[in-house]
Amino acid sequence: MLSKNQRKHIRQLSQKKYRQQTGMFVAEGEKVVRELLDAGWNADSIYSSSPLKDISTTNVDQSELERISHFSSASRVLSIFHLPKIKTPKINYSQFSLVLEGVSDPGNLGTIIRLCDWYGIEDIYCSPNSVDCFNPKVVQSTMGSITRVSCHYLDLATLIDGFKGEVFAATLAGTAHYELTFPKSGLLVMGSESRGISSELLDKIENKVTIPRGMDGEGPESLNVANATAILLSEIFRP
Amino acid sequence: MLSKNQRKHIRQLSQKKYRQQTGMFVAEGEKVVRELLDAGWNADSIYSSSPLKDISTTNVDQSELERISHFSSASRVLSIFHLPKIKTPKINYSQFSLVLEGVSDPGNLGTIIRLCDWYGIEDIYCSPNSVDCFNPKVVQSTMGSITRVSCHYLDLATLIDGFKGEVFAATLAGTAHYELTFPKSGLLVMGSESRGISSELLDKIENKVTIPRGMDGEGPESLNVANATAILLSEIFRP
Repeated sequence: MLSKNQRKHIRQLSQKKYRQQTGMFVAEGEKVVRELLDAGWNADSIYSSSPLKDISTTNVDQSELERISHFSSASRVLSIFHLPKIKTPKINYSQFSLVLEGVSDPGNLGTIIRLCDWYGIEDIYCSPNSVDCFNPKVVQSTMGSITRVSCHYLDLATLIDGFKGEVFAATLAGTAHYELTFPKSGLLVMGSESRGISSELLDKIENKVTIPRGMDGEGPESLNVANATAILLSEIFRP
Repeated sequence: MLSKNQRKHIRQLSQKKYRQQTGMFVAEGEKVVRELLDAGWNADSIYSSSPLKDISTTNVDQSELERISHFSSASRVLSIFHLPKIKTPKINYSQFSLVLEGVSDPGNLGTIIRLCDWYGIEDIYCSPNSVDCFNPKVVQSTMGSITRVSCHYLDLATLIDGFKGEVFAATLAGTAHYELTFPKSGLLVMGSESRGISSELLDKIENKVTIPRGMDGEGPESLNVANATAILLSEIFRP
């Protein structure tokens, strides 16, 4: 059984500030924990309600896991890891990188990280107001891809001003992605779920790209940002 | 303030069985509620912590909304609607329809419904073990698209056996989607997040389609099912 202080510690790791103070984060679920360990990430503690093959764990009841989990339904493994050292971002001019402005939903960032991993994109540049990539829900939804894709939080206007290559912004009123031929490297900028890309950034970007609707008439105002990113990356990586 | 029974009623609407017994479901968030009303759906009650323009609501405290919300962070509007009459599915041979086997994550089904709405797909055929489309989290993440896209729960093997057209299955070992030219109508079958498409269904489907990775070496085992659906629909609707 965990002490009151241990429980409090784990719960507080939902907060970015507390993660930065302690240098730790929470990862839940056997698959994610195995991926972090396989990547050489440093576990502080691994709690499990049943033994795991080849992984040494602290046995706790499932009811205890339900109490400390950051999810409404706990998996049978919850671990605390040390935050990895994030390498200093060095713009990669040999491939596309992704830029996210104000993406706030943890599930969206998590699946976007997994998408980048699928396409071999190693760096995501995020505005400082985007959700933190070590949020427990982001970590879980990356399904391990967080070990291969780095999120860098920085001023996007400065990044774009200094970028020597083509920059594409996803908007609702640009050229259809079907009609574009993308270069081998560049930046793809995606805006927040509710507000899109800020005019401050948009004014700096010449290439506007749009995912056309399949129909006329009524329909949704926009696509989910992760789904829109999926469609555009599939197009960018078209052989 | 709500009575204990009212609170219990709202909380129980998270259960499919209770929704079917009562013929009601919960929708949260002003945008979703407006979309349902605009589509002529029948509201039983609308609770809000602040007045809404042109919508008559029952005023409740925000703390009350936090208590009854199905989300960890409540919006300022929660409503109860009557379930709509789902029209009997009539296979549409003039366009693509989507088939989902065992998709269990509400956020995934919600954004897939929104994607279908974007592309003008009106019908989704779901295996009976898929998440119910009137789950509060599905309703919320459709952002109103649930008024324009119907989910039908039925035996998928029977559906595919009776379908007179081309059927495509998304798998990890098929033809690259970049290399296929899709017909104007057909079925696209997507499997569950964890297990993919069952062999029972897969054996019935000739066309296997795959989203190729952008890189060699390590990477995720698969894409999120909503993101994979997004990529394939974008390809199917290529002009």
